[in-house]
Amino acid sequence: MKACGLVVEYNPFHNGHVLHARKSREKTGADIVVAVMSGPFLQRGEPALVSKWTRAAMALQGGIDLVIELPYAFATQKAEIFAKGSISLLEYLGCDSFCFGSEDGRIEPFITANNVISDQSAAFDAAVKSAMDAGNSYPASAAQAYQAIIKNEGALDLTKPNNILGKEYVSAALTNGFSIRPYTIKRVAAGYHDTDLSNDSIASATGIRKAIHEEQGKSLDSVSSYIPKPTRIGLEQYLSSYRSLHDWEMYWPLLKYRILSSSLSELAAVYEIEEGIEHRIQQMAKTAATFSQFMTALKTKRYTWTRLQRMCVHILTHTSKEQMANTHLPAYIRLLGMNNKGREYLHTVKKDLPLPLISKLSAFQKQDIEMDIRAAQVYALGLSESDQASLMKREYAAPIITK
Amino acid sequence: MKACGLVVEYNPFHNGHVLHARKSREKTGADIVVAVMSGPFLQRGEPALVSKWTRAAMALQGGIDLVIELPYAFATQKAEIFAKGSISLLEYLGCDSFCFGSEDGRIEPFITANNVISDQSAAFDAAVKSAMDAGNSYPASAAQAYQAIIKNEGALDLTKPNNILGKEYVSAALTNGFSIRPYTIKRVAAGYHDTDLSNDSIASATGIRKAIHEEQGKSLDSVSSYIPKPTRIGLEQYLSSYRSLHDWEMYWPLLKYRILSSSLSELAAVYEIEEGIEHRIQQMAKTAATFSQFMTALKTKRYTWTRLQRMCVHILTHTSKEQMANTHLPAYIRLLGMNNKGREYLHTVKKDLPLPLISKLSAFQKQDIEMDIRAAQVYALGLSESDQASLMKREYAAPIITK
Repeated sequence: MKACGLVVEYNPFHNGHVLHARKSREKTGADIVVAVMSGPFLQRGEPALVSKWTRAAMALQGGIDLVIELPYAFATQKAEIFAKGSISLLEYLGCDSFCFGSEDGRIEPFITANNVISDQSAAFDAAVKSAMDAGNSYPASAAQAYQAIIKNEGALDLTKPNNILGKEYVSAALTNGFSIRPYTIKRVAAGYHDTDLSNDSIASATGIRKAIHEEQGKSLDSVSSYIPKPTRIGLEQYLSSYRSLHDWEMYWPLLKYRILSSSLSELAAVYEIEEGIEHRIQQMAKTAATFSQFMTALKTKRYTWTRLQRMCVHILTHTSKEQMANTHLPAYIRLLGMNNKGREYLHTVKKDLPLPLISKLSAFQKQDIEMDIRAAQVYALGLSESDQASLMKREYAAPIITK
Repeated sequence: MKACGLVVEYNPFHNGHVLHARKSREKTGADIVVAVMSGPFLQRGEPALVSKWTRAAMALQGGIDLVIELPYAFATQKAEIFAKGSISLLEYLGCDSFCFGSEDGRIEPFITANNVISDQSAAFDAAVKSAMDAGNSYPASAAQAYQAIIKNEGALDLTKPNNILGKEYVSAALTNGFSIRPYTIKRVAAGYHDTDLSNDSIASATGIRKAIHEEQGKSLDSVSSYIPKPTRIGLEQYLSSYRSLHDWEMYWPLLKYRILSSSLSELAAVYEIEEGIEHRIQQMAKTAATFSQFMTALKTKRYTWTRLQRMCVHILTHTSKEQMANTHLPAYIRLLGMNNKGREYLHTVKKDLPLPLISKLSAFQKQDIEMDIRAAQVYALGLSESDQASLMKREYAAPIITK
């Protein structure tokens, strides 16, 4: 059986994701499609709208055969680490290929970009540093540096978010000598950050989340044409079980408490907190009344919004530099859900897996995946007391099995 | 000018406190009465009903001339340390005497108890240990041990809460060679823990709080005959400004978050967490929906309710054993409020004070009283966002001055 891997967040799973899965299957000739999906906190430093269980269930109903969790140590990270964790897991799971959506749509420019940047790494790094010293964020600096090095037509545009991620996926596969083969398909219609719902049936997850938030998470009418029916039902069931979708504001009292009850040196020990920004974080937390006010006050040109939000996630989940120091590569494969084909595939690769496969948490495994359990626990604390208990019960139950 | 010191919590200030101040003044012949009052968190491990500023204002209107803060490092502590901090501050402030209410009402049995226990400390400690090993709490064991050593009639009954505290006040004065002189008056009518409001005008603070909680902090009708008018007005103003009185339940989401996002070794580093109780704390926090449920699940014969609640306060305020290790004696005198006589007294003793007098927080002083500021900040987090800001503004303002 040939498997194609997808790196996903599914926040939430929408029509563009259905298309991505279908086209990836066609393009790679795979028998099954495996998704490595972020858990409760996402790459942009935000809590997912709904739990990973609900998102995995939506994916299984939308054409994905097997869903595994991208551990916290990789999910809430800059593109390079995020990609390394995801592609490693797909390689370890025996996938023949992975396929990502990009603004470019051709795989060659990604391979070229990887080769050029690794061949001329000293020049590239120096150009990035000089752009950052001029006050630019890392992504903007990297894009500038690449443009300065490679001047030919048709080169990869590294100012585009999916191209950036894609370049890191390709680099993760090539530089680690993995056998997994990269493919890309052109993203349809909606850009990653597009927030208007214009196309008939495809919209970005960002646009869909914005529309849901504008209706205060109460109605899904404005987004129903952009999401498969199971996603709509899944979101509605989540709302009726847990009474609200997750957003940063629901964690603001906890984040504020953690920031204001920590010493500066404790904040400085949190992962990604650097260059004295702990002073600014503590100062701004004192007067902000909402997470949104806090972020607006905190933002400077030096840091992207995303990077600041990731710092906030690490503060909230109490994740230190020391804890992150031991997480260079994934140490386990956590199963969230599968259908019959996914199960069949897993059966064929099981004996050759280089990592332990975790299908249900036990006391023994808890130590290894402590960071993921803590993230799940903190994520649950955004809900009411009774809902916390039922979500955490799910965390200890068996994976989702569908036909 | 002669000053008499009182050790108080005023939670809230009631008719019994008016009587205590008046009788103390008469008995000691003092010109002014100084109260050393606990800040936001109290000896029993509970948040105060209202802020220290509101409680200081009530006291000034009820006959107290000068109010200083008992720092967090002494306020949320077992009787011995609580007493040492309080009596030291009164001594340093130049008080000639202190006067406490007790069930006994005579000062001699307190002096005898101090002398007997310090003369026979080895026998006393052994008797305490053996009672504790039998599964009793410290206070019960100490009372048993004292009864075993001293068998004469009329000896101090150390099962009574105010006698226990009084014995520690007297010991703090005598064993440190202080010149301050101890006095006691017999408590009127209501026992410390009495929760029914039976006497016409005197009730315990515990009873008053219980009655307020039963009316869900909305009405003060049932307690108005037990509190002076300024206390009623103060509580009403607090309710109208801040919309609620403080109780443990309002901090439960923060406490639960802190417990569940901390590692066991981090919990074990918290002050007073000992003998592996961190395991039990984390276990019980997972399933409890309220602070009250949590405490009920946590309680064992080994620990008093009070001691467990103090552990919770230290977890909530993030106070470590390491931080507490450097706080054997008060290092500053923080002024909360005064009337003209209090100000006059302060003027006469000011030049001889052995400790810095803090009347307004500045950046320089912040380091020294970091623990108190953190306690005030965490206490404020129980309120709504806008109320937090106004309470913290008060923290940085000048002391209360009345005529």
